Amino acid sequence: MKALWLEDRQLSVRDVPMPVPAPGEALIRVRLSGICGTDLELARGYYPFTGIIGHEFVGDVVEAPDPDWIGARVVGEINAVCGMCEACFEGRPTHCENRTVLGITNRNGAHAEYLTLPMDNLHRVDDSISDEAAVFTEPIAAAAQILTQVTVIPGSKVLLIGAGRLGQLVAQVLASTGADLRVVARYEHQKELLHAAGILTIEPEEIEPRRWEIVVEATGSGSGLDLAASALRPRGTLVLKSTYKGEVTIDLAPFVVDEITIIGSRCGPFEAALGYLEMGAVDPVPLIAARYPLADALEAMRVAAQPGTMKVLLEP
Amino acid sequence: MKALWLEDRQLSVRDVPMPVPAPGEALIRVRLSGICGTDLELARGYYPFTGIIGHEFVGDVVEAPDPDWIGARVVGEINAVCGMCEACFEGRPTHCENRTVLGITNRNGAHAEYLTLPMDNLHRVDDSISDEAAVFTEPIAAAAQILTQVTVIPGSKVLLIGAGRLGQLVAQVLASTGADLRVVARYEHQKELLHAAGILTIEPEEIEPRRWEIVVEATGSGSGLDLAASALRPRGTLVLKSTYKGEVTIDLAPFVVDEITIIGSRCGPFEAALGYLEMGAVDPVPLIAARYPLADALEAMRVAAQPGTMKVLLEP
Repeated sequence: MKALWLEDRQLSVRDVPMPVPAPGEALIRVRLSGICGTDLELARGYYPFTGIIGHEFVGDVVEAPDPDWIGARVVGEINAVCGMCEACFEGRPTHCENRTVLGITNRNGAHAEYLTLPMDNLHRVDDSISDEAAVFTEPIAAAAQILTQVTVIPGSKVLLIGAGRLGQLVAQVLASTGADLRVVARYEHQKELLHAAGILTIEPEEIEPRRWEIVVEATGSGSGLDLAASALRPRGTLVLKSTYKGEVTIDLAPFVVDEITIIGSRCGPFEAALGYLEMGAVDPVPLIAARYPLADALEAMRVAAQPGTMKVLLEP
Repeated sequence: MKALWLEDRQLSVRDVPMPVPAPGEALIRVRLSGICGTDLELARGYYPFTGIIGHEFVGDVVEAPDPDWIGARVVGEINAVCGMCEACFEGRPTHCENRTVLGITNRNGAHAEYLTLPMDNLHRVDDSISDEAAVFTEPIAAAAQILTQVTVIPGSKVLLIGAGRLGQLVAQVLASTGADLRVVARYEHQKELLHAAGILTIEPEEIEPRRWEIVVEATGSGSGLDLAASALRPRGTLVLKSTYKGEVTIDLAPFVVDEITIIGSRCGPFEAALGYLEMGAVDPVPLIAARYPLADALEAMRVAAQPGTMKVLLEP
């Protein structure tokens, strides 16, 4: 089969052997996959990985231990877990110590014609959800993770910094709560996407310092973090919804004096993400910037890497 | 009256005018005051302050708007608040935007014969609590603040890094919960104090990495922070119970991947602290290293500044 292969920081579209599902796993034919910032970071060598990248997908089950699943259109959680370690036993399976992660850690990913995942990772997609929407389930789940970590209610004063691929989805999820949300967006087309979704933006210089109850940092940059720190009110909560490349220097003293809570936030609940899509509370389709056949994956990655590019999809 | 005065990073014991209580305030004759790490940092110029330093005390009310309080033995909360700002209205008075802070910010402090504080700040001290114990109320309250921010129950796996003046009190407060607590202490006499209180210590090289549910950092050092980061399990909580001097560099990426929660922790509930002292759950008296007359405050500050020194008290 055809796949987007990463090795020694070199990407190539190549023919690789068809994957063989392990016991308890399904074989899935990919309908669409989405290029994520993590894919770009993997390609830049920020994390060591050799194999097929990609972890956002929608596809059809073609082989499964349970015949009821064959033919089902599914999305899949990306952490394949052992079920045996302390983290699994204590209810934190996304932190399984022995986990493999689709297209990220020790498991071939979704920018391919086929992939395998444990049956436990699969979620059926309701017919009301298009492939183009379903392919966003994983990042919408990551956005929804914030609501499992912080209480956001109508009127909560929330500032989101960053309106890229993930930031746009975070904005829609936060807006669905009725929070008093403002979003800092760098690019004009990011602002337009937010406004079209009925979400208010704010310019950095308009942000009242020390007044925001919850600040979500989704730029992954030191300057975003500094802006977040200055906006938070005492006893406020800073959600880190983006990884930081390299060491970030911050002055922790004010965080102690102001009793700030900082929360790292990663993978989230697929059920919630599919719920948002079914309800129409989150509409990711306007975020699609381009769609390429898998054969043109190198060009697709090049386009996705351009600053401000929204979601680029691959079609096997 | 006599007082320990700080001006341009110079300390002196000098005669200053008797303080005059503002409306709603009491005049208090100090029985004992305690030297805190913050006093040493103020003297080193880490924060700008001119006036009488000191914020840990026990004393007697000599003037008060309500005659019932005259003669009462009291301790006092250090944040004098406006009651009018957003933080006060929303129930975060220790974060009042217009606050003055006893011996720290715009308010003369406790290393003096007399001080003034708003009546609302005062707490009567039960006869069962000695002056030598009561003078620790403020730092015990700061230790107890942790329990208002993090759920600690019997069996919670808690690591405390740092066993200095504040660390010892944090250790006793945490131990009172029945948590499975281990404490990293630098000095032999710190370990002996902990062992005498029935608290277990651990050497840094014995700490299992990525296994601790709650880590309290009470050293204020970058190395303490690094040790804390390596000890935390995924979804663990890091409590910052010490201020950091200057910028501290940390790699935030693992905090996001591991979904760590970081909580800054400062002033706490005096009622809880007095409760611990009444119950005998916290016994600070063994922490007293030395006691000086206020006239010898410069020598007392010099002794307190020596690494590993426990509590030094001043007696007006």
